[in-house]
Order: sequence, then structure tokens, then C-alpha cells
Amino acid sequence: MTFRLEKLLEQLSKKEENEVLRNDVYLSMKNDLVKNPPAGKKKALQSKKKEVKEPSQDLEDRLLRNIKNIESTVAELSQVSTNQIMSWFQEWFSIAQQHPWIGEPNAMCISTISTKNLSSGDDKSAKSLLFPDSRFVLLKGRDNSKGVFTFFTNYESNKGKQLTAYPQCSLLFYWEPLHAAVRVQGVVEKTSDQVSDEYWNSRPYQSQLCSAVSEQSRTVENRGQLEKKLEQLNTKCEQDQKVPRPKHWGGFYVTALQIEFWKSGPYRFHHRVVFTRQNHTQTDKESWQAALLQP
Amino acid sequence: MTFRLEKLLEQLSKKEENEVLRNDVYLSMKNDLVKNPPAGKKKALQSKKKEVKEPSQDLEDRLLRNIKNIESTVAELSQVSTNQIMSWFQEWFSIAQQHPWIGEPNAMCISTISTKNLSSGDDKSAKSLLFPDSRFVLLKGRDNSKGVFTFFTNYESNKGKQLTAYPQCSLLFYWEPLHAAVRVQGVVEKTSDQVSDEYWNSRPYQSQLCSAVSEQSRTVENRGQLEKKLEQLNTKCEQDQKVPRPKHWGGFYVTALQIEFWKSGPYRFHHRVVFTRQNHTQTDKESWQAALLQP
Repeated sequence: MTFRLEKLLEQLSKKEENEVLRNDVYLSMKNDLVKNPPAGKKKALQSKKKEVKEPSQDLEDRLLRNIKNIESTVAELSQVSTNQIMSWFQEWFSIAQQHPWIGEPNAMCISTISTKNLSSGDDKSAKSLLFPDSRFVLLKGRDNSKGVFTFFTNYESNKGKQLTAYPQCSLLFYWEPLHAAVRVQGVVEKTSDQVSDEYWNSRPYQSQLCSAVSEQSRTVENRGQLEKKLEQLNTKCEQDQKVPRPKHWGGFYVTALQIEFWKSGPYRFHHRVVFTRQNHTQTDKESWQAALLQP
Repeated sequence: MTFRLEKLLEQLSKKEENEVLRNDVYLSMKNDLVKNPPAGKKKALQSKKKEVKEPSQDLEDRLLRNIKNIESTVAELSQVSTNQIMSWFQEWFSIAQQHPWIGEPNAMCISTISTKNLSSGDDKSAKSLLFPDSRFVLLKGRDNSKGVFTFFTNYESNKGKQLTAYPQCSLLFYWEPLHAAVRVQGVVEKTSDQVSDEYWNSRPYQSQLCSAVSEQSRTVENRGQLEKKLEQLNTKCEQDQKVPRPKHWGGFYVTALQIEFWKSGPYRFHHRVVFTRQNHTQTDKESWQAALLQP
């Protein structure tokens, strides 16, 4: 897959380069580029090296003050609005974005329900069991007025198929360096073609290529087969540097029915506040019940 | 809850202090202690301040070499032993332990299956739906010969009750700074009283107190109620500095049926290798099938 390293550097616009360094390229590839840069690129790449900062204690203090504020708000109000809850989420998210050790504050664990057929070696005793299945994806959008979180994936991947069979999921933001988490349970629906197209078109050409080539979660004989497919698609698309969005690739909206804010305490004496949407069929109705949970 | 700060410093043995600083105390509490230490403790506490190191690129390179090694092993062997898979896990885990930004390499997201009764405001249309539920816990043990992962919790917490109803779960180690994950799906069973006692007795007195006081996941009117219960139990126990293990507190073994190693690639062209146990009733039989998955 030599096209990657060579073409990459030619193609990277300033915008793409920033996006790539932030979200996509792992360090080993950055190293490859730094070690063997084409003429004229060496200086630019080296200056991209991220400065390592000591995290400010202030960030975690702000989170702690915030959850104490949530606790006292909840003690006074029996019902809380969607906008209020999402504004707390926004504040926590923004604190996570400021932490120098958190590379992807928008990374969230999405868990789905899968079905496994287990054979015990004797066909008669084969049985089907439900299993949760979990992986991290990136949050790509949010509707604060509705309590909706958006992400994109391959609808034919394991998670896509699982969400089609059981359109319920949990999302979990876990910001380890801040000792904080936000837990969401919700129902999913697919985004419109228009929304999926808009996001697809905003992605770098190389990400489009890789997503279009991958039959996500299906087996493959070896890595070489995938890289060959990638080169073939690249050859086909490289003239206009655009890859058409595959029909099976798109977004999911997760409408939250429950949101919990979790902040660790010493000796596991944590702070936990949970909000539960009271009327799940009317997502525009602002009726969330709040409760403090024991740690 | 003044007992905490005052007694803590008297009680901390060297061992406990290390345990506490590593696992339990969040920074704000450490700050309280540093600001107002009892005489003679000031210097010791300040020297505990963790040095911030720049993570070595070498760690991520090692992970990448490792997954390439797994990929080539898998291409040659149709079946892989439990010990071999767990030794790869051990290597990834050990790399995560060496990363200066990863505070709790043993943190893992455990996802369970829950049932939610959703009311749409009209009782007739109430329905019950399955939801995944997710939170982070700490891995506390491992049996490499059997592919078993152990953690401890309150059996009457939400996760405890969910695991009793559906004894299947997923575990997800996500080491964000290394852009790597290990995904496990497995079946659970409770540990023996003896194993639960052993781990309970190894915990610091304050952690025992907090766990014994918390009816985990149940609602509580306000934080003050919890702190009062904590003080009462402390008064009762402080003479011998031991809290008896509550009967509803103990461990779970997760016997893995599937383990996936995931290492990010540029533009989401990730490396994924999955191992599936072929005969789930014979955990001592080493029969895992391996496959490369598309990214």
C-alpha cells in the first residue's frame, strides 16, 4: 500500500492535515512520515509534534463543583429540562476537550445487543443467548434541545446489524484522566440520506476510501487483500478525489431516555445523578425525573 | 464527614498510601491533604506528586508490531490456545501499564443486559424493552489458563441484578492514548465466598466502609444521608479497623467466549483479530478459532 505514504503528503490540504493529525493518524504513521518526508515537508511535519502539558488540577475541580451544583439543583427541582441536562453535558465535554491527555473527548463506548449461537459440541444442546457487544466510536453531532447524540458507521457492520435487530443502545463517555463518566441509554434511528451525505462529504478523501472498501466486521483472509482493494478504489477515484457514499454507510441518532453523570469520589464513594425521561414518545416534552444514586 | 481527612492520614500505612494514590483518591482530595497536612506529613505528601512524562512512541510501536505478529500467527495456525491469547493480552496490558497517561490500565467497560419498562404516558401502551447498560469497573484478577477475568461489585447493584438475570456480558479495555482496545464477550458466575473474602480483606479500611454503606445504584435523598451512615459505621468499626464483608458484595468470573484485539490504523483502516472459543462448555479445552476482521 505504497500509495498511502506518497500520495498522502501531496494531497493533504491544510485543513485535512489538521483533521488527520487530530483524529486519524496514529503515531507510527506520523513517525514514518517524519522519518522519510518528501523534500520541503520535513520542517512542517516536525513542528506538528504535540507539546505535552501537565494537566491543570483546575479541570477536575470544575467537574467536581459542577456535579455538586447538579446535586443541589436536583434537590430543589423535581423535573429538569432537556436543555438543562444537555448544557451540563456540554460543560463536561468542554472540560474533557481542554485536558491535554484526552486525545478524543468525543470517543464513546456504544453497546448493543447481539445474539450468539453457542454450540457445546453436541448439536442437540446448541442454544442461542443474548450478549451485549461494545466498542468505541466517535460522537459526531448532538441536538441539545432533543437530547440526541449522533454517530456514523457501516449499517452492515456488526453494530449496524445489531442496532437494526434491537434499536436500543447505551453510550458511555469515560474520561479517565478526569475520573468522570456520562452514561446514556437510548433508542436509535437512522439519519436521513441527506444527513449521511453531508457528513460523508466532509470527511477526508482517504477516510472515504477506507470506509468504502471495508465490509466492516466481516472476515478477510489477510491484510493484503484489503490493501489491494484500497489501491484499486483509489485508482478509480483519484481523478476527482471523491468517493461516493456507499448506501450501507450512514448515521444513527440516539435519543436519550436516561442520562447519568458520574464523578469518582475517594474510596469509591462516588457522586451519581441520573435523569430519566418520563414520556419517551414525546421527545419534545421536557419531563426528566432526577435522582441521586448511591455510589 | 470530617473523619475522613483527619483519620485518613493517621491510618495510612505505606502500603495503603500507595494503593490509595494509585487507585482511589481523586486529585481534589489529594489537594486538600497537601494544603492542610498534619505536622510531619507535609514533605511526604508533596513528594508523592506524580511526575508528568512524555509517553514513549516505542509503546505504541510495540503494540503495532504485536498485532502484526498476531495477524501472521493466525495466518499459519487454524486454532490458537487460551494461554497464547492471554499472553497477548498480558503483553498489551503491560504496555498500557507503562504509559504515563493511563492511570488505570485495568479499567474496563462492563456491559450487561437490562430490561426497561417504558411508559408513553398511556398505561395501555407501556412496553418492556431490552437495553444494554455500561459502566467502568476495575479488573482485579485473571486466569490465563482458562481465559477468565475477575472483578468485584455489589450483587444488589444494577449490574449485579442484571448479571443475575442475564449472566452474559462484554468487557472492553480501551486504552485511548495507545489507540488500542481489547473486546471480550463472556459468561459470568459468582466467585466463592472465600475468594470474595480474600479480596475484601485486602482492601483499605476506608474502601470497605464505603462499600459496606452503599446500597449501590439505589436512590438516596441527599449526599448528607450517605455521609451520616458512613460516620456511624466508622464509629462502630474503628476499634479493630475492619469492616465485615456484606453478604451481597463479591466477585464475578467472566469466562471469555470471544476476544478481539483492535489496533487503530490511519483513516480508520484498523487492525482487528478475533478469537472465538469453539466449545464453550469445555473451558479447559483449548480450541479457539481465529479470524481477521475488516476494519
